[in-house]
Amino acid sequence: MKLQHVYEAQQFTLPLLLELFERADALERIVKRGGTRDYRHKIMATLFYEPSTRTRFSFESAMLRLGGSVISTERAQDFSSVTMGETLEDTIRVVNNYADVIVLRSNEVGGAKRASLVSSIPVINAGDGKGGQHPTQALLDLYTIYKSAQTIEGVKVAMVGNLADGRTVRSLAYLLGKFDRVKLYFVAPPALQMKPDILEYLSRHNCWFTLESDMKKVLPEVDVLYVTRIEQEVLDKHEKINREIASSYFVNESVMQSLPSHSLIMHPLPRLSEIDPKVDGDQRAAYFHQTYNGVLIRMALLTSLWEG
Amino acid sequence: MKLQHVYEAQQFTLPLLLELFERADALERIVKRGGTRDYRHKIMATLFYEPSTRTRFSFESAMLRLGGSVISTERAQDFSSVTMGETLEDTIRVVNNYADVIVLRSNEVGGAKRASLVSSIPVINAGDGKGGQHPTQALLDLYTIYKSAQTIEGVKVAMVGNLADGRTVRSLAYLLGKFDRVKLYFVAPPALQMKPDILEYLSRHNCWFTLESDMKKVLPEVDVLYVTRIEQEVLDKHEKINREIASSYFVNESVMQSLPSHSLIMHPLPRLSEIDPKVDGDQRAAYFHQTYNGVLIRMALLTSLWEG
Amino acid sequence: MKLQHVYEAQQFTLPLLLELFERADALERIVKRGGTRDYRHKIMATLFYEPSTRTRFSFESAMLRLGGSVISTERAQDFSSVTMGETLEDTIRVVNNYADVIVLRSNEVGGAKRASLVSSIPVINAGDGKGGQHPTQALLDLYTIYKSAQTIEGVKVAMVGNLADGRTVRSLAYLLGKFDRVKLYFVAPPALQMKPDILEYLSRHNCWFTLESDMKKVLPEVDVLYVTRIEQEVLDKHEKINREIASSYFVNESVMQSLPSHSLIMHPLPRLSEIDPKVDGDQRAAYFHQTYNGVLIRMALLTSLWEG
Repeated sequence: MKLQHVYEAQQFTLPLLLELFERADALERIVKRGGTRDYRHKIMATLFYEPSTRTRFSFESAMLRLGGSVISTERAQDFSSVTMGETLEDTIRVVNNYADVIVLRSNEVGGAKRASLVSSIPVINAGDGKGGQHPTQALLDLYTIYKSAQTIEGVKVAMVGNLADGRTVRSLAYLLGKFDRVKLYFVAPPALQMKPDILEYLSRHNCWFTLESDMKKVLPEVDVLYVTRIEQEVLDKHEKINREIASSYFVNESVMQSLPSHSLIMHPLPRLSEIDPKVDGDQRAAYFHQTYNGVLIRMALLTSLWEG
Repeated sequence: MKLQHVYEAQQFTLPLLLELFERADALERIVKRGGTRDYRHKIMATLFYEPSTRTRFSFESAMLRLGGSVISTERAQDFSSVTMGETLEDTIRVVNNYADVIVLRSNEVGGAKRASLVSSIPVINAGDGKGGQHPTQALLDLYTIYKSAQTIEGVKVAMVGNLADGRTVRSLAYLLGKFDRVKLYFVAPPALQMKPDILEYLSRHNCWFTLESDMKKVLPEVDVLYVTRIEQEVLDKHEKINREIASSYFVNESVMQSLPSHSLIMHPLPRLSEIDPKVDGDQRAAYFHQTYNGVLIRMALLTSLWEG
Repeated sequence: MKLQHVYEAQQFTLPLLLELFERADALERIVKRGGTRDYRHKIMATLFYEPSTRTRFSFESAMLRLGGSVISTERAQDFSSVTMGETLEDTIRVVNNYADVIVLRSNEVGGAKRASLVSSIPVINAGDGKGGQHPTQALLDLYTIYKSAQTIEGVKVAMVGNLADGRTVRSLAYLLGKFDRVKLYFVAPPALQMKPDILEYLSRHNCWFTLESDMKKVLPEVDVLYVTRIEQEVLDKHEKINREIASSYFVNESVMQSLPSHSLIMHPLPRLSEIDPKVDGDQRAAYFHQTYNGVLIRMALLTSLWEG
């Protein structure tokens, strides 16, 4: 059960998830009393083949809070440019001699897995291509729910928006399906509903779920409302979904009135108009706090990779 | 009088300025004997919406000399790109969870102020847009004068070049106007003279000033000659100012002969032909030493923001 | 013999090279038992006028493993852009106040030398323009040979590929020529052979060498096979050298059978098809290990520059 690399959400068994969450809790206590873990010998290389400052900053912050240091590029594609022409595998073998962990944002699905096969140091997937995975985002989402309820079992989560293309909701549904008595509400216009592969997986694991197109119906029942964007390009592509339909999945003050007082509003960010800024001050608004938990869960992952 | 954010020169009262300069002096003594302050738990995020390597390096050097660490981007505009579309406010709230201070180079006037309104950690303005402020440049300029004379009171400063558009000379004039018995000589062709808003402010504060177009007349009287560029685009715009007129404001060895031996030549850098490289070896040439003072004053600001 | 700056391979005398290798060996022992040198007051500025992530990462990793920290730009050309227009000399004088060592990747031949003439802190050349030098690459190559044989004297090195334009092979030949009883085999199609300046230098130093176009003939005799690329643009330029001829200099499993069992295959990387990936697992394949040695030799250089 020793974690060597992190390339996909499927690697995380239930005991591994709980161990990570406990690690993250412990690290939060250390950070809060102003301490750090002393990993000052450790170097993280962030290799980004496409820019993603938010994700890069979160990993780098986690590393620095552990006392370590960072070497960083957001133009890793230069390694494999026409003039350079190096394979990903060769780049990884070189960086193995410069660092103690590689955080890889690949532009190809499966890039992180390929990298992990030749790397002598841990590789962490920080997103691999359109349709690929972004497992640490799913971990921080799950950890945010866990911290709020002190458990995942029995939690009722509505996922709202573009579920068909949403990398984050797909991974989160996958992880939630591992826990007992979880209820999932997939709330989207039919054309953007959660895809059959995830539904079949949930059925196989006896995880309760329902498909819904009317957000109002599920609001009073849920512990978590996980909101995602319906991008303009999606509206352009689907004739049946216009701006008006899309906006019926927006969260505003009236939506908040229907939500239980203990519930959480989550969002993977960046947020556009799908959550009204007036909601930001509500104590149920957890979307910025998710980024706080993101640093903790990445600290937990790093220590787990090094300590086993 | 506790400083929470730094967004404009107007925030700095006279006691606050003097306290900062004393902090900077004390930090210089620590650095010189090879020590650092132990801020190794602290993280600076440099968020640059336009590149400015010189300014970024100065802030990062200050942070590292305090023992802290840095996460950095010169493409912060990616946060708010068409595909991302995040507001500055949301970006700041996210970065609040990754760092302990934000150094912001905005591309909009007022960006740093807006950021400070939502930020739970200190925001420092590292330049906000054309016509905006760059308060730490003004602080380092003032500190350079202070270190040379051990006081600002009674100092005689000539500002030379394009005063109409110069962000640095405007902020410096503003700060100098707070001190007693300061004399300001604004030396420029009429079309590039200091604008009325600053002149009115100085009148209101009973600060002595004069407008002059002939640099030679003021040279023997001044303690500081603050030189700025007259850019090619300015020459193109103003028919009446040709290359020959512009070059009458250049500093060369003959100009140096008219300057008092205790005086300082200052320049915000980068320098083009307005200061002859032959002047560099003169002990009055302070323009590179300004960048040294810049690191000290930024160290002082950081400790002031954290310690209050 | 105190080293103040590193701008060209010619600076390295034989005693200096041996002292560096001993320093690198000592630093390796410290790193291996998990220690660092405590240079935490020291700041490295990496000033890259053209991107070279591999080289930048190696220097930054060396600095971090020594306990120091880094400020970094791969767009140093912004300093001297049309709007900024600063000379390299002015940029260096500014950065002198931000850091304790400058690693410079210039886009002009001689850039590092020019920088060293005005810098109050050490400047290290990390490559200066097409046809310029990259002395630390030559040092790491030489150190790799030294570590393998515990000496350089009497070593037999074949250099293969495009020797006419190869910066690395030219510098390495230069350094090898300083040691007794070294034998050099220059293996290339006539149009890409080692240029007369290096051959004359070797003759002057009584260093044995031979020119060869058939790689197979030299394989059984050599201790080191140093492989370089024959780029597509070179094939395009030279009518007489086609793909088939180029590929006769490729290293594959059959080539390996002719090489002595104690020999090393080296390559400056990135590698294209001139070394078959099937060779990677062979214990004689030293090209990724060269990047490991690169960090050690750069650590040694840094401590040597600071400690003298």
